[in-house]
Amino acid sequence: MGRAIATALVAADHPTTAWNRTPGKGNDLDVTIADTAPEAIAASPLVVVCVMNYEAVRAVLDADALKGRTLLNLTGGSPRQAREMAEWATEHGIDYLDGVILNGIVGGPDAALLYSGSKEIYQAHQATLAALGENGIYLGEDPGRSAGFNMSLLDLFWTSMFGVVHAFRLAAAENIGPRELSGHAKAMAGMLPDLIDVVAEHVATDSFPGEASTIDSAAALLEDLVDTVRANGLDDGVLSAGRAAVRRAVEAGHGAEGFSRLAVL
Amino acid sequence: MGRAIATALVAADHPTTAWNRTPGKGNDLDVTIADTAPEAIAASPLVVVCVMNYEAVRAVLDADALKGRTLLNLTGGSPRQAREMAEWATEHGIDYLDGVILNGIVGGPDAALLYSGSKEIYQAHQATLAALGENGIYLGEDPGRSAGFNMSLLDLFWTSMFGVVHAFRLAAAENIGPRELSGHAKAMAGMLPDLIDVVAEHVATDSFPGEASTIDSAAALLEDLVDTVRANGLDDGVLSAGRAAVRRAVEAGHGAEGFSRLAVL
Repeated sequence: MGRAIATALVAADHPTTAWNRTPGKGNDLDVTIADTAPEAIAASPLVVVCVMNYEAVRAVLDADALKGRTLLNLTGGSPRQAREMAEWATEHGIDYLDGVILNGIVGGPDAALLYSGSKEIYQAHQATLAALGENGIYLGEDPGRSAGFNMSLLDLFWTSMFGVVHAFRLAAAENIGPRELSGHAKAMAGMLPDLIDVVAEHVATDSFPGEASTIDSAAALLEDLVDTVRANGLDDGVLSAGRAAVRRAVEAGHGAEGFSRLAVL
Repeated sequence: MGRAIATALVAADHPTTAWNRTPGKGNDLDVTIADTAPEAIAASPLVVVCVMNYEAVRAVLDADALKGRTLLNLTGGSPRQAREMAEWATEHGIDYLDGVILNGIVGGPDAALLYSGSKEIYQAHQATLAALGENGIYLGEDPGRSAGFNMSLLDLFWTSMFGVVHAFRLAAAENIGPRELSGHAKAMAGMLPDLIDVVAEHVATDSFPGEASTIDSAAALLEDLVDTVRANGLDDGVLSAGRAAVRRAVEAGHGAEGFSRLAVL
């Protein structure tokens, strides 16, 4: 990501100084290469950090060098970590912005970057940030908000990916090949965007009609599904945990409502 | 579904006799309404049953009436249930076909029906079955195969739906509204079809390159995600169960491989 960020800044004619924990990276770009992190920090009013995790962020950042500058942290982490980093920055006289790169793309119209933290700081750097993606979205003063957004989306993404790999595993156990399954699996996954709109609408209106399909019918189906997974000797952890949530909804009297009710339980 | 099936058969000019557990249903269609299930069964060489579950199938079917006829069972259930039903049918001199309606659509080009069981029986009724969907797929002699297919797809679907509702729940806890999340959530879900192709290719070639993203990086991210869910006091059952599978893969030495490796573990 560091390389993509530097490339995007250079492409927008911003003088850029880079430092990488692995020396030698990035020196084919038209950037100044700093020997140390503090040297890179001292070179510019806006400092962008994007490393593996918050532990790595703390190892890299130098409070003295950052003082009076703006720190944009694009490292992935939890909302709590972002808020703690913002507090640390404020204590050290550093202007802080938190951000996330949603889809791994930096620069141009396809990049999806979210920012949160001080609006004043965001606006002061908005022109520069446009180099990282034309459609950046500012989410508000709470510095943890972009991380909260990111975590919610990754919840959806990784849970779905658990389903994807498990579906291929179950198919193999049922003597169904990956290329036999994939077309139908893609069609199934292709139904999700419309269903996401339905869930969003139900949550927004606090109304969970069970016309299309009920929690009761999902519960019945999940019994067959968990039985099938167990009969094949496969890990049923994810499905059983999901079934437990569905069962709790039934026990709480929501069985005749739509599945979307689980989004508020 | 019964109504959709009768409508499709009538539209294709097949003389159709219907019976429904709820009297009065369907008599606005151009079908003969039978007073009892055996009477409906006795009316035609091909008997289609589509009810809530296999328990309901057993309550409805009459072995004596079915003898010498073909039974097409479109009721959803497990592969085991389909195989047991096929055995029961054979014991009673009934020709059996199992099938699933993948997307809830019957008739026309958009219906996605799968069939399994005796090829001879399938071919004998193929012209009639075309009324239920032009693109029906025959999956082979094992009567449980269409149910296995269905269960694999429902595994993907319902696991993804766990992720959808949980993402909205987490977003709400992080003060992110449903309509704020939905566009980005749809974009995230929209990445799944291409990733399904990738996983299918990896499984088919038994090769799991970690170039795009590794099991290690998924494991690290899942730590932050589970922490965030727990910090909000939310149910982390599904994510923790998925994380456990990812951790097992790391412990088994697969950390540097692609996430798709989980499809064969």
